Amino acid sequence: MTQSPRPEARAPRGFMDRRARDLAAEREILTKVSAVYEQFGFEAFDTGAFEYADALGKFLPDADRPNEGVFALQDDDEQWMALRYDLTAPLARFVAQSWETLPKPFRRYAFGTVWRNEKPGPGRYREFTQCDADTVGSARPEADAEIIALAVAGLEASGLPRDAFVLKINNRKLLNGLLATAGVADEGQKLAVLRAVDKLDRLGPDGVRLLLGEGRKDESGAFTKGAGLSVAGAEAVLAFTAAGVGGRAQTLDRLSNVIGGSAEGDEGLAELVAIDVALTSLGVAQDQAQFDPSVVRGLEYYTGAVFEAELLLQTLDEKGQPVRFGSVGGGGRYDDLVARFTGERVPATGFSFGVSRLASALRAAGRGLGAETRGPVVVICFNPDDMPHYFSVVGELRAAGIPAEVYLGSSGMKAQMKYADRRLSPAAIMLGGDEIAAGQVTIKDLDLGRALSSGVTDNAAWRAERPGQQTIARTDLVSAVRAILEARP
Amino acid sequence: MTQSPRPEARAPRGFMDRRARDLAAEREILTKVSAVYEQFGFEAFDTGAFEYADALGKFLPDADRPNEGVFALQDDDEQWMALRYDLTAPLARFVAQSWETLPKPFRRYAFGTVWRNEKPGPGRYREFTQCDADTVGSARPEADAEIIALAVAGLEASGLPRDAFVLKINNRKLLNGLLATAGVADEGQKLAVLRAVDKLDRLGPDGVRLLLGEGRKDESGAFTKGAGLSVAGAEAVLAFTAAGVGGRAQTLDRLSNVIGGSAEGDEGLAELVAIDVALTSLGVAQDQAQFDPSVVRGLEYYTGAVFEAELLLQTLDEKGQPVRFGSVGGGGRYDDLVARFTGERVPATGFSFGVSRLASALRAAGRGLGAETRGPVVVICFNPDDMPHYFSVVGELRAAGIPAEVYLGSSGMKAQMKYADRRLSPAAIMLGGDEIAAGQVTIKDLDLGRALSSGVTDNAAWRAERPGQQTIARTDLVSAVRAILEARP
Repeated sequence: MTQSPRPEARAPRGFMDRRARDLAAEREILTKVSAVYEQFGFEAFDTGAFEYADALGKFLPDADRPNEGVFALQDDDEQWMALRYDLTAPLARFVAQSWETLPKPFRRYAFGTVWRNEKPGPGRYREFTQCDADTVGSARPEADAEIIALAVAGLEASGLPRDAFVLKINNRKLLNGLLATAGVADEGQKLAVLRAVDKLDRLGPDGVRLLLGEGRKDESGAFTKGAGLSVAGAEAVLAFTAAGVGGRAQTLDRLSNVIGGSAEGDEGLAELVAIDVALTSLGVAQDQAQFDPSVVRGLEYYTGAVFEAELLLQTLDEKGQPVRFGSVGGGGRYDDLVARFTGERVPATGFSFGVSRLASALRAAGRGLGAETRGPVVVICFNPDDMPHYFSVVGELRAAGIPAEVYLGSSGMKAQMKYADRRLSPAAIMLGGDEIAAGQVTIKDLDLGRALSSGVTDNAAWRAERPGQQTIARTDLVSAVRAILEARP
Repeated sequence: MTQSPRPEARAPRGFMDRRARDLAAEREILTKVSAVYEQFGFEAFDTGAFEYADALGKFLPDADRPNEGVFALQDDDEQWMALRYDLTAPLARFVAQSWETLPKPFRRYAFGTVWRNEKPGPGRYREFTQCDADTVGSARPEADAEIIALAVAGLEASGLPRDAFVLKINNRKLLNGLLATAGVADEGQKLAVLRAVDKLDRLGPDGVRLLLGEGRKDESGAFTKGAGLSVAGAEAVLAFTAAGVGGRAQTLDRLSNVIGGSAEGDEGLAELVAIDVALTSLGVAQDQAQFDPSVVRGLEYYTGAVFEAELLLQTLDEKGQPVRFGSVGGGGRYDDLVARFTGERVPATGFSFGVSRLASALRAAGRGLGAETRGPVVVICFNPDDMPHYFSVVGELRAAGIPAEVYLGSSGMKAQMKYADRRLSPAAIMLGGDEIAAGQVTIKDLDLGRALSSGVTDNAAWRAERPGQQTIARTDLVSAVRAILEARP
């Protein structure tokens, strides 16, 4: 059945083969975070990979990234389907479809794969797993507070140290109110202001001041047109974004001075006050969740509170330079997504994080799973006729909860040892004809071998108390292997 | 941002929205089966959803089902990509790509979504989760035996009772040898024989006899051309397929009488003998894994041993009629898949099951998760001003490991109670102004309410010892809720 020409063996660009260590890290996040989310009364729910393209919207709904698309194809009946690019759009479709019969508010969480048809690059994949939690059907600011508290609890349960991250909270209505007071009504100009504020981290206040006004020329000489605010307007926006210092109450005080006056701004402030009260009764400390008016979040669909989970640790970039890790997740209130289908506004709020991004954050925080995934104990195959003996050894070890396998390739002794070493096996078991006849077994301590050859362990001291290889009674097999497992350096 | 016309809210045909119960069942299978597979020395490994279409093969490699296709689309660079239709083809691609650097044999397992572009129908989905385990790089029959032992151990760990399923094992080489002896060399004729044998369950020996010979007219009058074997040839095949009775050794005896003579048949027999020996040393009982020459497995790519995991229980079909559940998984040896890429034969063997099919089998065996997923304790919202009190109650319950939430919708008391009931909450907590002032809380026992209204529980007897509603000191909250959870009928 060989075809010619032979296909090349390679994965498509932007898709990843994933080995045991990464899968184990993600599975641990799934287990720990799910437990917390269920504690908060959120139920597991997932949709299929495909949605009809009209239900999904053909592209990410973000004017700032118009070229980021979806993977779409035409079904047999000519309808266009597309792979979901996030878990929010399918949730909105499901809610619109099932609204009458759902218990409301609908609180759900999901771990799911999403796809983005973007240009792949180093560290940029076109497929990844997201974890979302959303409350649909509650307009109360307390629903936002619950989502924030859940995000804090979930991230902490995943293993992130308490002082390694912070939830930063803002409300779109504040900036809207500020701009209304400044006489800005045009949606395009509002978006330009949002985009300028979003660059605070990178450009600092001086760069953003230019982008809020006439525009800014970058180092390459390229000119970006500004939002066209007046000098006073730009200063008001900058004062607003700088108001997030200290605890939540302090920031609220400072904000009320900057904002007050517009109806929308007052509404936004009142929501933040209610969020603060709820967070406090939920036991979310001041240093775990802060108000920060510089938080923007790119997506246009947010209508109220927005949140960003920021990692406070530094990590190293590809060149070994220290960089801020930045965001591990975010979310906010989006009250208009279901209305796309039904015409009726349904209030909703949620938090989302990228699972492999959180796994990287955990590693950066020194809380990830070890770099290694330990292999099974390997029983060396000297003579295929003795397979029954080998298999009864692995059966014994497995029954004792110890991963084990018989070497089943066709290579000689040396290659078998190398195989066991590459699998990071703790030990190799040897059963030659003499050992079988004498009811014995020889165990080679591969952990010790690796520790010695890596220089981690002082040769002489170890050798004295730990034999590299020992021949023992077959009946002592399990306890001898356990001793090696427990002594792991 | 409302668009017109509004899109219709519906999922694409053949894709499923999945609620908590089904997701919990699948997650439990993942957890339990993974533990067993890792015990066997298999490491977790997964690939991306897409493969290049040439690497995947554009369609399922089964001439019997030529219309079953894949979901394919063209990438930006004009290359065709397709969503994987199983986990074996991507494994073959990965192995071909990484052969030099992999520890060999490569033993991996994967839980992954696969997609088939088939006509959807009741119970027929175009997206599902498979779990595969494969050993690549071992030609030894013992590698097949390990896969069989692993399948038995994994299915049992998932919760299937030991007597509810059996692994049925055959070897393609036996039938090939038999046909060679009968003078059949043509591949097309061999396939026609395989297909005829595959219909034994449905047509019985008489129907299959016709399909092995000239052909068969079905009840509708449609004629299926037969494989064209001689009468003696057809009888030999039927005797062969009937040889699987009793324990493995008995079947081997019977087979050696039917088969003997051809080189390929002898090779197949020798492999089954080695598999039997290994299974016995691995402790796999005669009734857990049997030899059955009538097992065919549809896919053309199998080259040696084939296995089928058959559920022995009956279940009910859509009309309530008892039907045999049939296969929950299968696999076999496929030595040619990697050669598609490299030109070099790489021996491989594996077992695969559909995760939601196993979940159905578990339900059919009475071992599935309960029909219900219990909801959180719900704190009723009487007065939004008292939210801090409500939140401190849910905080306490969550800290005690009890899922809880404050009702955050905008409905009145009655609708809130209905919400709690629909979420299958064990209890509702009420904190009116008086209770707050008195340091008390009222608990309504919703489990009891449901038990009474369903008639499961005798009203009078229960009422006597279990209050439907009680007002207690706030400090007794957690223990009172625990009592309700523990008393669940």
